[in-house]
Amino acid sequence: MTELLSIILAAGEGTRMKSAMPKVLHPVGGLPIVAHVARAARQAGSSRIALVTGPRHQAIRDRLSAIDPQIVHFEQSEARGTGHAASMARDLFASANGYVAVVYGDHPLLRGSNFRAVLDRLDAGLDVAVLGFEPADPTGYGRFITDGERLLAIREHKDATEEEREIGLCNACILAFRAEVFRDLIDKIDTNNAQGEYYLTDLVGLANAAGKKVGYGVAPEVDVMGVNDRSQLARAEALFQEVRREDAMKAGVTLRDPKSVWFSWDTEIGRDVTIYPNVVFGPGVKIGDNVEIRAFCDLEEVSIGEGASIGPFARVRGGADLGPGVHLGNFVEVKNSRIGSGTKAGHLSYLGDAEIGSNTNIGAGTITCNYDGVNKDKTVIGDRVFIGSNASLVAPVTVGDGAYTASGSVITDDVPADALAFGRARQETKPGYAPKLREKALAKKASKGK
Amino acid sequence: MTELLSIILAAGEGTRMKSAMPKVLHPVGGLPIVAHVARAARQAGSSRIALVTGPRHQAIRDRLSAIDPQIVHFEQSEARGTGHAASMARDLFASANGYVAVVYGDHPLLRGSNFRAVLDRLDAGLDVAVLGFEPADPTGYGRFITDGERLLAIREHKDATEEEREIGLCNACILAFRAEVFRDLIDKIDTNNAQGEYYLTDLVGLANAAGKKVGYGVAPEVDVMGVNDRSQLARAEALFQEVRREDAMKAGVTLRDPKSVWFSWDTEIGRDVTIYPNVVFGPGVKIGDNVEIRAFCDLEEVSIGEGASIGPFARVRGGADLGPGVHLGNFVEVKNSRIGSGTKAGHLSYLGDAEIGSNTNIGAGTITCNYDGVNKDKTVIGDRVFIGSNASLVAPVTVGDGAYTASGSVITDDVPADALAFGRARQETKPGYAPKLREKALAKKASKGK
Amino acid sequence: MTELLSIILAAGEGTRMKSAMPKVLHPVGGLPIVAHVARAARQAGSSRIALVTGPRHQAIRDRLSAIDPQIVHFEQSEARGTGHAASMARDLFASANGYVAVVYGDHPLLRGSNFRAVLDRLDAGLDVAVLGFEPADPTGYGRFITDGERLLAIREHKDATEEEREIGLCNACILAFRAEVFRDLIDKIDTNNAQGEYYLTDLVGLANAAGKKVGYGVAPEVDVMGVNDRSQLARAEALFQEVRREDAMKAGVTLRDPKSVWFSWDTEIGRDVTIYPNVVFGPGVKIGDNVEIRAFCDLEEVSIGEGASIGPFARVRGGADLGPGVHLGNFVEVKNSRIGSGTKAGHLSYLGDAEIGSNTNIGAGTITCNYDGVNKDKTVIGDRVFIGSNASLVAPVTVGDGAYTASGSVITDDVPADALAFGRARQETKPGYAPKLREKALAKKASKGK
Repeated sequence: MTELLSIILAAGEGTRMKSAMPKVLHPVGGLPIVAHVARAARQAGSSRIALVTGPRHQAIRDRLSAIDPQIVHFEQSEARGTGHAASMARDLFASANGYVAVVYGDHPLLRGSNFRAVLDRLDAGLDVAVLGFEPADPTGYGRFITDGERLLAIREHKDATEEEREIGLCNACILAFRAEVFRDLIDKIDTNNAQGEYYLTDLVGLANAAGKKVGYGVAPEVDVMGVNDRSQLARAEALFQEVRREDAMKAGVTLRDPKSVWFSWDTEIGRDVTIYPNVVFGPGVKIGDNVEIRAFCDLEEVSIGEGASIGPFARVRGGADLGPGVHLGNFVEVKNSRIGSGTKAGHLSYLGDAEIGSNTNIGAGTITCNYDGVNKDKTVIGDRVFIGSNASLVAPVTVGDGAYTASGSVITDDVPADALAFGRARQETKPGYAPKLREKALAKKASKGK
Repeated sequence: MTELLSIILAAGEGTRMKSAMPKVLHPVGGLPIVAHVARAARQAGSSRIALVTGPRHQAIRDRLSAIDPQIVHFEQSEARGTGHAASMARDLFASANGYVAVVYGDHPLLRGSNFRAVLDRLDAGLDVAVLGFEPADPTGYGRFITDGERLLAIREHKDATEEEREIGLCNACILAFRAEVFRDLIDKIDTNNAQGEYYLTDLVGLANAAGKKVGYGVAPEVDVMGVNDRSQLARAEALFQEVRREDAMKAGVTLRDPKSVWFSWDTEIGRDVTIYPNVVFGPGVKIGDNVEIRAFCDLEEVSIGEGASIGPFARVRGGADLGPGVHLGNFVEVKNSRIGSGTKAGHLSYLGDAEIGSNTNIGAGTITCNYDGVNKDKTVIGDRVFIGSNASLVAPVTVGDGAYTASGSVITDDVPADALAFGRARQETKPGYAPKLREKALAKKASKGK
Repeated sequence: MTELLSIILAAGEGTRMKSAMPKVLHPVGGLPIVAHVARAARQAGSSRIALVTGPRHQAIRDRLSAIDPQIVHFEQSEARGTGHAASMARDLFASANGYVAVVYGDHPLLRGSNFRAVLDRLDAGLDVAVLGFEPADPTGYGRFITDGERLLAIREHKDATEEEREIGLCNACILAFRAEVFRDLIDKIDTNNAQGEYYLTDLVGLANAAGKKVGYGVAPEVDVMGVNDRSQLARAEALFQEVRREDAMKAGVTLRDPKSVWFSWDTEIGRDVTIYPNVVFGPGVKIGDNVEIRAFCDLEEVSIGEGASIGPFARVRGGADLGPGVHLGNFVEVKNSRIGSGTKAGHLSYLGDAEIGSNTNIGAGTITCNYDGVNKDKTVIGDRVFIGSNASLVAPVTVGDGAYTASGSVITDDVPADALAFGRARQETKPGYAPKLREKALAKKASKGK
């Protein structure tokens, strides 16, 4: 495959988002918009990626460096147009071989195949290929002025004649070039236009003028939607989810109500998994075969083993590893914990920073007291343990294999294997005393009323 | 602005709702249908509002008095038609100056602008102006018989000729009059019709006959939908939600899945707020900037400060004031409590009737024991307090600034500032005893099986 | 009504489901697909039902025997076509009187009325009647070759001429016969076709050849959708839910957002019930009048009395009987328990295997410790009891009428009526000790950092 450098343009302010966060950092499927674009570029074989951002965009650079550390960052310090923005990446394209693709960074549904649609045209001998699409409503888009398969120019909507506005094929978001052609032409763009800006799309006319072969590829409209405000962001999210839901069902996952299951970009789900309504998958979820996820679960950063049964009303997060056949029931939170096969925590429990063995029973209302106000400590529980209901396990603490803790106990000391631990007061009962309490409470109420 | 009296008609039985509750009290966006109509009248500048209800409608009068105490109530004791109903408000319209608008009370999506559409016609010199709309399917609606901008008559569907039924412009739900014209004509309505009832719409013909200038305004169909059964109620709710969701997004709120967020009529949300799927806002919610509401939250009567992070699975209600940067996590309920800035309650807690300071940590499983069977008492917790996990705080009780309560404690007495309080039994451990317990349990099972 | 034998064909493998579970066992509205077909057959008056399954389908036979024990099971050991499958039920149809209906088992939305559409034709004198429908897209379906009301043949799509493919009326999923006609013809089917299989639909041509009167009935497309993959399963579920939601609203139930309420096939809901968004009804739910179900509830196998108020965030399951006026609040789970009228459990509680009287108050955080690792034991609580918050009730245990248990108590012994029981440690307070704890914690952190 020919070497590819992708230049992602993300220097715009995106003011219509009305957000202090840069537009391209808003997430779709849990991943920033611009990271979707970078992923698509990588899928298309982009060995190098340049990301051009604005002066107030340190947050983008930080976030993207964390996601894809190989991305090279460039800053466009003044808003002088897309052509100017692309030229910021000179350090990379100066030495580029093969192809250069310039792509807008606010297109979260872009896929590798959209890059391929134009790169294939370069492979077929063109010098320049631009990605087009046929929007249901072309108002506002730049129109493709074509002659058969040749692309002669991209006419901005406001500059287009009445007749040109009838054209349905419009500019999408990727312009691809042979590297040397891009290098030759990028500095020839001028600012002779209404905005006084350097337009990237002028490269099409310049390439034609230089006798280069210029053509286009076509993308489905849904792939190339741009995001400019929160309604479009919500629509992009909806389209993203639609694809993921359909993919999951094709792969043998039952979604009782697909519209009420939300995936992240990296959710992995095995075969014969059943997902009830109202399940949210945050990033980092991997689910084995034959798992059942009941309604009202919120899961992120968790690996769930085969045959497990989760929820309803389960919350898992912060790095969790649930073994095969684990059961987590209602109002149970698991954070940063490893739970062995066949272990059950059915009700109203918080398991944080815990290591729990296999075939252990965690009673209703169990709380790992993992925090002392400063440190987070570990709770270690062995195999075949029985943790009685309403236990407080004060970390750091270890409960050995086969041990048993009594209901309602506060466990502060390690419990050896097969030991029984109590940590609760003995019951005292005062016959006939309840009516007196009620009288006192009523008297208190009466005195308040005075 | 010309003085305006609005007469809202709500005396109908609404039997198609199949409800013991009067139709117009069913809520849309958490507010009774008829209260939406009253709000729209107020928005249009109605200084006085008359509400005409039926003899079994004390519940409407009580509820609306609570919502808008200035409304004047009239009872129509017999169901003798809309004209008769409007005449019940004589005490008010007898002395009315300016305009009188008569409006049907079962139109929850009505807005001030719909009133303005007819009032503007009066401002322009008409004597009578009726609100019309063009329904997708006009079957059943009264048709506007017009001559240019003049409205000659309103023909009920069943009385209309085949030709008249072709008319698309239909009667919506507001008739507006110069006060003196209304007063002159209202008693001229008769019962010469199939139903033997006084039809309000007869005023159109009467006004024309009296040489008055009669015209109409037009409303979008969606604004003037009436509710007659629970399907229409659900549809009104859906349309209401659609508008609110779009408004929120325009104002800079991210709704990851707009269809799964439900607003109330009075929900206020700041900028750069992110709302995950499945959030229900009951009445009385006000949210500051940069707040994050995770999935599965149910919030009502709460003010949430800037930068707070709520949920998933949080329930707040009953008057709560959460300071900036507060974090409420999963399976946490807050009721009628004030929580200071930066305080965190992350897991499985119930905080009721509490006053909690700033930068305090509420451990997992903390319960305020605020009820003694009769009285609700207060729990007061200071700043920088550490409440250990699984605490029971028996109100009334005060925990001073900087104090620390041990995990699993029952706190019955006040804890001074910087003190440490324990309220738990010491652990006893019996080595090797767990297998005996298991044997006993198995023996019990075996004996049951006999 | 003429005697009816229904032969349900469910021997197919359903590989497009990508499931280890046989296709017809996948549930719609909580009931297996094929059980919906059997229910429709029963509704149509089918006194006897034969179910033909494949050799690897023991799971179907077991499940359906549990649901409808009168069904007679037959195995088709080789996949030799639908005609061959139907012939497997010979033991039943050999002695059948009246009518025989052969029906495909993968049509979850089938109703009794669809059977009636063909049985009525037999009642009217026909010998054979086949159920047809007019799909929006007929591609792939067998076309009805008709002559007026006569059905001459069913032409498979791949065998149809260009002209025949224009036919809109297609084969649905029920073929009905006079019993003697079915018996005479079933063995005349041969394998002279591309697949080399016995086609059930050949009976139409054979009946015509034998001079029998053959006609058809028609079903709405939605009733006769077949399920072949998980997308179609999701669509069937959606259509099922749509019908149920509309029916509930017609009956006087308020669904604030119908799309976010999921019914089971057997959900029963009274009048003037209000259901908030996001409620899941599993099988076995029966709800009385005037009940309010708040958001985020997951209910199954429960009967809820008049005027009860449930949720938000309530989970009920495993056989529960909630009396009139019961209130269950947030993060409350009830399993296999009986709760008397007016009793309240408002917060963070687990009530399992409990019998609770009337007008009792269950404090926040109450846990019934019903499991000892082997046995499930009962908790019995009387009338007018006050269970203080954060209680652990260690079953088997009984708390008598009017008794009172202190907050934070572990109750291990029976509490007599009107007694007060404590089971908690007395609080100790160490003034000025909290800063020392914090120093220790910080020192620990520092030492970790080394």
